[in-house]
Amino acid sequence: MHAELLMIGSELISGAKLDTNGQWLCDRLAAQGIPVRFSTLLGDTLDDNVAAFALAISRSDLVVTSGGLGPTQDDLTRDALAKAAGVGLVQDDRALAMIEALFARRDREMPDRNRIQALIPEGSSILPNPIGTAPGIWMKTGIAHVACLPGVPRELKAMFDEELVPRLRAVGLGGRVIVNRVINLFGLGESEVEAQAPDLTARGRVPEVGITASDATISFRIRAEGVDEADALAAMQPTIDAIYERFGDLIVGEGTDDVAEAVIALLHDRNKTIAVAESCTGGLIAHRLTRIPGVGPVFPGGIVSYANEAKTDLLDVPADLIDSVGAVSAEVAEAMAVGVRRRFGTDVGLSVTGVAGPTGGSPDKPIGLVHLGLSLDDHTTHRRLSLGSEQPRPVIQSRSAKHALNFARLGLLGKTP
Amino acid sequence: MHAELLMIGSELISGAKLDTNGQWLCDRLAAQGIPVRFSTLLGDTLDDNVAAFALAISRSDLVVTSGGLGPTQDDLTRDALAKAAGVGLVQDDRALAMIEALFARRDREMPDRNRIQALIPEGSSILPNPIGTAPGIWMKTGIAHVACLPGVPRELKAMFDEELVPRLRAVGLGGRVIVNRVINLFGLGESEVEAQAPDLTARGRVPEVGITASDATISFRIRAEGVDEADALAAMQPTIDAIYERFGDLIVGEGTDDVAEAVIALLHDRNKTIAVAESCTGGLIAHRLTRIPGVGPVFPGGIVSYANEAKTDLLDVPADLIDSVGAVSAEVAEAMAVGVRRRFGTDVGLSVTGVAGPTGGSPDKPIGLVHLGLSLDDHTTHRRLSLGSEQPRPVIQSRSAKHALNFARLGLLGKTP
Repeated sequence: MHAELLMIGSELISGAKLDTNGQWLCDRLAAQGIPVRFSTLLGDTLDDNVAAFALAISRSDLVVTSGGLGPTQDDLTRDALAKAAGVGLVQDDRALAMIEALFARRDREMPDRNRIQALIPEGSSILPNPIGTAPGIWMKTGIAHVACLPGVPRELKAMFDEELVPRLRAVGLGGRVIVNRVINLFGLGESEVEAQAPDLTARGRVPEVGITASDATISFRIRAEGVDEADALAAMQPTIDAIYERFGDLIVGEGTDDVAEAVIALLHDRNKTIAVAESCTGGLIAHRLTRIPGVGPVFPGGIVSYANEAKTDLLDVPADLIDSVGAVSAEVAEAMAVGVRRRFGTDVGLSVTGVAGPTGGSPDKPIGLVHLGLSLDDHTTHRRLSLGSEQPRPVIQSRSAKHALNFARLGLLGKTP
Repeated sequence: MHAELLMIGSELISGAKLDTNGQWLCDRLAAQGIPVRFSTLLGDTLDDNVAAFALAISRSDLVVTSGGLGPTQDDLTRDALAKAAGVGLVQDDRALAMIEALFARRDREMPDRNRIQALIPEGSSILPNPIGTAPGIWMKTGIAHVACLPGVPRELKAMFDEELVPRLRAVGLGGRVIVNRVINLFGLGESEVEAQAPDLTARGRVPEVGITASDATISFRIRAEGVDEADALAAMQPTIDAIYERFGDLIVGEGTDDVAEAVIALLHDRNKTIAVAESCTGGLIAHRLTRIPGVGPVFPGGIVSYANEAKTDLLDVPADLIDSVGAVSAEVAEAMAVGVRRRFGTDVGLSVTGVAGPTGGSPDKPIGLVHLGLSLDDHTTHRRLSLGSEQPRPVIQSRSAKHALNFARLGLLGKTP
C-alpha cells in the first residue's frame, strides 16, 4: 500500500519557496502505515497537473495533494482532478455555505470569485476546512483515493488530522504503523561503517536500515512496521541493540548528531567541567557548547587564541615552543589544553590548532592539518587530523570542532590513547 | 525548454529529512533560463527509479538528479539510469583514478566498495566531483540530457556550478538569463523598510523587487532578465542605486547578510583590530569573525567568559561591580569591553552579556535582555537589547551576536552614541 504526493504551486518549482508540507505529509502517512513512494512538485499549469493526476491515480492507492484550491485563476487542482478523472465540476452547496459563513464570521462580504471554491469534481465530496476558506476534496478515482488539501501548512495539517485520517481508516487504507529511528555515529567513514555492517544494511532486510552521511556524521536510519507503535518499536529493538553492540563508543546519540550534547551530558554525569582553547575553530566549539541550555555548571568559558601572542599571554604556551615547532603542532595543542585547563581551573582542557585555509598552507603543514589537545585527569594527549586541503574553510572549522568535541567525549569515556 | 528533477533517497520520502537541494536547483536552473516543470522525490527502490527516469527522459529537455551515487547498496542511480536508457554499466578509469586519489590525499585506503562509484552507464561521461568521492554522470538519452549529482548539498552545488553549467551551455540548453541580487539591511523592521520603499516593491514593477525578513535582517531581492548576465545586471542597476541612496548605512552587504564581513572589511580599511568578550553568545561572535578568511590581522582573539569568575579573572571586571549591578548590566558590559580590549591590546573591544534562556530570567532581567559594550578610541559605550522572552535560546544568541557586530560596525563608522 503506497501513497503519492502532488505538491502544487509555481512558487515551489521556481526556487522562490521551500516546500515543507511534503516532508510533514510523508512523516504522517508513514505513521499511518501508508509510506509515500513518489512526491512530485509541480507548477500551476493545467496540462502538467492533469498529467500528474492521471499518472498518480493509475499507480498509487492514495494520492494526497497540497495547494491549488484558492479562488484565483492559477488555482487549478479542482479542474485538473476532474479532467484526469474524466468528469465535470459541480457546485457543492455545503461547501458554498461554509465559505459564505466564514466570510460572514469575519464581517466581510464574499467576493464572487470565491464561489469557484465550492466547485468539486462529480462523484467527489468535500473535506471541510476548519480554518481557511478553501475546502478540500475527497474522491475515489482510478485505483486511488484522492485527498486534495490546501497549501497553507496550518490548514493542511488540521485537515489531515481531523478530516483525512478518519476517512483513511474508514476505507481501509493504512493500519500498520511505521516507526523511524536514527542513530548517529562519528569517527568512521561511510564505507567503513557499511563494511562492518553488511548484514544490517542488506537490501530487503526487515526492519530496513539505511545509511546516510552528513558533515562526517554517519546515520543509521531504521524503519520498522507494526500493528501499533509499541509493536514497531519491539520489531526494531534487536537491530538497535546490534548497532550499539557493534559501534558502541562511536555512537553520538539518537535523533541528534550533536557531539556537544553528548559531551555535556557526560560532564554533568561525571560532575566535571571543561574549558576550551581555540585557534582555527575561532570560538565554534565554545558556541556549540553554549547553544545547549544548562551548560553553565560544566563550562565556565574558553579562550579564542587566534594570534600567537594570545597563546603565550593567555594560555602560557612558551613562545620558544611556538618558534621551534610552529603554532600548528601536537606540542602546542597539548600546551594550549593544559594552559586553558589551568586558566579556568577545570577538570578538562580541550584545544584546537590547525590550518583552516584558504591560504596559509605549506607542504609541511597543508590546509586541513589540525591538531587537537586534551588534558584531563593526570595526562595530556593529542590527535592529528588531515581534513583535506581541498575542503573549504567553514568545513574544516566545522569538522575540527566536531572531532575536537568527540575527542573530549572519548577522553571522558577513557578511550583516548 | 524545461527541466525535471529527481531527488533520490528514502530519507526524503520517509519524512526523516527535508530536501533542500530541489529548491536550490530550481532557483539555479531558472537563472540559466531552464525552468523546472516537475521535481519528484523518490526512495531507494530500483523499480521506482527506473520508472521515474523513463518518464523524465521521455518528456523533459534536461533531467537533473540528486543522490544515490554513494558506495552503498541503496545507491541505485547508476543502475536505474542505465536500465531506463537500455544500456549496461561500464567502469570509467578516470573516475576510478579520482576516487583513489581522494582516498590517498586523506591518507586512507580505498575500500573495495567504493569501486562501484566508478561505474557509469555506457555512452555517458563523468561529472568530476571536486570535493567528495562520488563522481556525477552526464548523458544524452531519450529526448533529455541527464545530469546525476550527489545528494550532499555542498558537492551538488559545486558540481552544478563548475561542471554542469558549462555543459548546459555547450549543448545549447538555456535561454534568457535571470539574475538575482540580494541587498541586506539590518537595524530597521520589515514594515518600516516597506513604508520607505512603496515604489520599489510595487507589484508588476520591472525589475521585480521583493522584501523578506530573516533573523532580523531585511533583504531586498531584485530579479532581472536579460539576454546575458551583463544585460540583466544593467537592467537592475538603477534599482540597486535607489536602494543604496535610500538606506545607506543600514545596508550590511549584498548576497551576504553577514555583519561580521562588514566589520572585518571596515577594520582592514581603517587598519584597526578588535577583540571580543562573550557571555551569553558563548563564542558565536568570535566564530562569525573567524569564519571569514584573512581575519587574522584584525582579530587576535576573544574570551568566552561564561562564568562570573572568568569575567573577573580574565577581563578584570570588578567582582563587587557584578555583585552590585549583576552580570547582565550596562556597567558590566562596558567593563568587559574595556577589559578584553586591554587584555588583547586591540583598538576595539566588543562585549555581550545577557539572558539567553530558557531559564534564568527574572521580572527585572527577563530572558532576551542583552547588554552590548563597545570600547574604541577614547570612549566606551553600551546598548541595551530586549529580544523578547518568548524567543528560543539559539535565536537570542544569534540576534545578540548580530546586533553586537552591527554595534561595532556603527561604532567604526562613528554612528554610535
